[in-house]
Amino acid sequence: MSSPSGTTSPSGEGGPSGEARGGRRRQASVPDLVASARAGEPRAVARLVSLVEDESPLLREVGAALAPYTGRARVIGLTGAPGVGKSTSTSALVRAFRDAGRRVGVLAVDPSSPFSGGALLGDRVRMSDHAADPGVFIRSMAARGHLGGLAWSTPQAIRVLDAAGYDVVLVETVGVGQSEVDIAAQADSTVVLLAPGMGDGIQAAKAGILEIGDVYVVNKADRDGAEQVRRDLRSMLALAEREPDAWRAPVLATSARSGAGVVEVVEALEEHHAWLQDTGELARRRERRARAEIEAIALTAMRTAWGGLGGRVELDALAARVAAGECDPYAAADELLAARPGAG
Amino acid sequence: MSSPSGTTSPSGEGGPSGEARGGRRRQASVPDLVASARAGEPRAVARLVSLVEDESPLLREVGAALAPYTGRARVIGLTGAPGVGKSTSTSALVRAFRDAGRRVGVLAVDPSSPFSGGALLGDRVRMSDHAADPGVFIRSMAARGHLGGLAWSTPQAIRVLDAAGYDVVLVETVGVGQSEVDIAAQADSTVVLLAPGMGDGIQAAKAGILEIGDVYVVNKADRDGAEQVRRDLRSMLALAEREPDAWRAPVLATSARSGAGVVEVVEALEEHHAWLQDTGELARRRERRARAEIEAIALTAMRTAWGGLGGRVELDALAARVAAGECDPYAAADELLAARPGAG
Repeated sequence: MSSPSGTTSPSGEGGPSGEARGGRRRQASVPDLVASARAGEPRAVARLVSLVEDESPLLREVGAALAPYTGRARVIGLTGAPGVGKSTSTSALVRAFRDAGRRVGVLAVDPSSPFSGGALLGDRVRMSDHAADPGVFIRSMAARGHLGGLAWSTPQAIRVLDAAGYDVVLVETVGVGQSEVDIAAQADSTVVLLAPGMGDGIQAAKAGILEIGDVYVVNKADRDGAEQVRRDLRSMLALAEREPDAWRAPVLATSARSGAGVVEVVEALEEHHAWLQDTGELARRRERRARAEIEAIALTAMRTAWGGLGGRVELDALAARVAAGECDPYAAADELLAARPGAG
Repeated sequence: MSSPSGTTSPSGEGGPSGEARGGRRRQASVPDLVASARAGEPRAVARLVSLVEDESPLLREVGAALAPYTGRARVIGLTGAPGVGKSTSTSALVRAFRDAGRRVGVLAVDPSSPFSGGALLGDRVRMSDHAADPGVFIRSMAARGHLGGLAWSTPQAIRVLDAAGYDVVLVETVGVGQSEVDIAAQADSTVVLLAPGMGDGIQAAKAGILEIGDVYVVNKADRDGAEQVRRDLRSMLALAEREPDAWRAPVLATSARSGAGVVEVVEALEEHHAWLQDTGELARRRERRARAEIEAIALTAMRTAWGGLGGRVELDALAARVAAGECDPYAAADELLAARPGAG
């Protein structure tokens, strides 16, 4: 296939390869970009993800162009507390999927990046493992201060990699607060990583990971206490109520650095995928994901309008009245809702 | 004042005192409830907070009834990682504010409670310190799986305590992910708690606490490393760019268990409050809070309508079309927005 994407670095940071930096700055059309991404051109894929990050007005056109090509990729979420070895595990999983002949796209989503902005460093470090492999695309993504954050940007970025023909899309995020739940809502299968000696491994479990994992992995399995973490986790999972025909999440052990146990994780993910298909759960999860995506886009449009950008009501003025006790927030919300933003 | 609130325990868990449990179950009117809350009746206050938690349809009427009495309380956020001593610090701060003659309301918000549901235990433990004091109201609150979670329910609960005449409303939440940022957005002043030996104290700092604290407190100051944490934090704060007349957040030390240093925290909060008033920042923060509250109410109304409850469009049907690639999410969002929910 030809590569029209030589011209597709109109702005932004360019692809993770850095080739676009300082290159030509001609604006590619959305159809060209989508065609290039579908032809496997990483710079075009990177550019489309940048459009998502930047909340580009072009996203509407991009969404329409991508839609016919979506729905094929398997979306796997990977989450865990800081320090459990998420990057190493991602890299090991990428290698295992590549060995199985799959093209792999990775989105590393940083929920704290509204402040830290440190997403790109991780990119560079991890790219080095797979830099020479055209079957791998890795991209860090900031989850900005949007309404919804992850909920808004991640599904759109997944859609880009899906349409670009990656068989597996790995979405990696640090498990803090709501982010792990958000990722689980967007993935077909969710891998929850733990490690011994973290102290908060089990504490994290209490906070909700018992509800979101399809496959549990205790990484750093060669360390003291790894077997104990597995046992504890299995006990807790066994206590959870579930339907008789529900998926029973396995608790595996890996040493991602050496690669030990990683093949078993891939096998468990294959089994889970087969279960999702057999039970109809795959379609349900994907509809749920689409639902969240539509909702997030619509809510963002509402908020933009309410901010006075094209809306008929100035939210700030209403807020001043509520803060002064002149109006209650429900009456103010009614006024907002009475002023519907244009849907175009 | 008379106490019509003897009849105000129609449903729900009753007040933290437990007196309502098993008592009469007559339905009090909203004006009666608000009058009782304003008369200092803790069961009425608790009942109003329960209405917020339960997303009661009565909230609209409650909001209107409370509005004229709001805007007086000082709202103080208190956040920190698990294990820094938040509950003990809250209790010590309550005592210090009581010593200064203030009535104090405490909302302990648990962002993980969609899963854990463990909010009430903390309630009971902490109540014991202040159980006999009618000038203190303590309530744990679940931040359910709402749109926005904390953003939706916390400001409405703050409004209840404000109208009920508490001079200080302390909002305590565990600092994980987004929750600490949400709390800071809703408070007049935010206290960020750290402790030595947590390991992740400074890591947490990187993730955003440097932007949200008005007063930093290193608790467990008698432990090894406390001074180092203070020095590190001061260095990091000194590096942050800020306007010449911006507030300079102090870094204090406490031992909340013994009470050492707590008076200094209260003094710093008084100074910060004076600064907020002098600079006009107090009004700006309160308008921002009202803005977030209005927006959250309006967005919740939109989502409810989109879910098919009274709306004209079935979001699920749109999601199925998007998941099947028959429609892109932007076009689907347009269809949603074209169907405006009734605003009444």
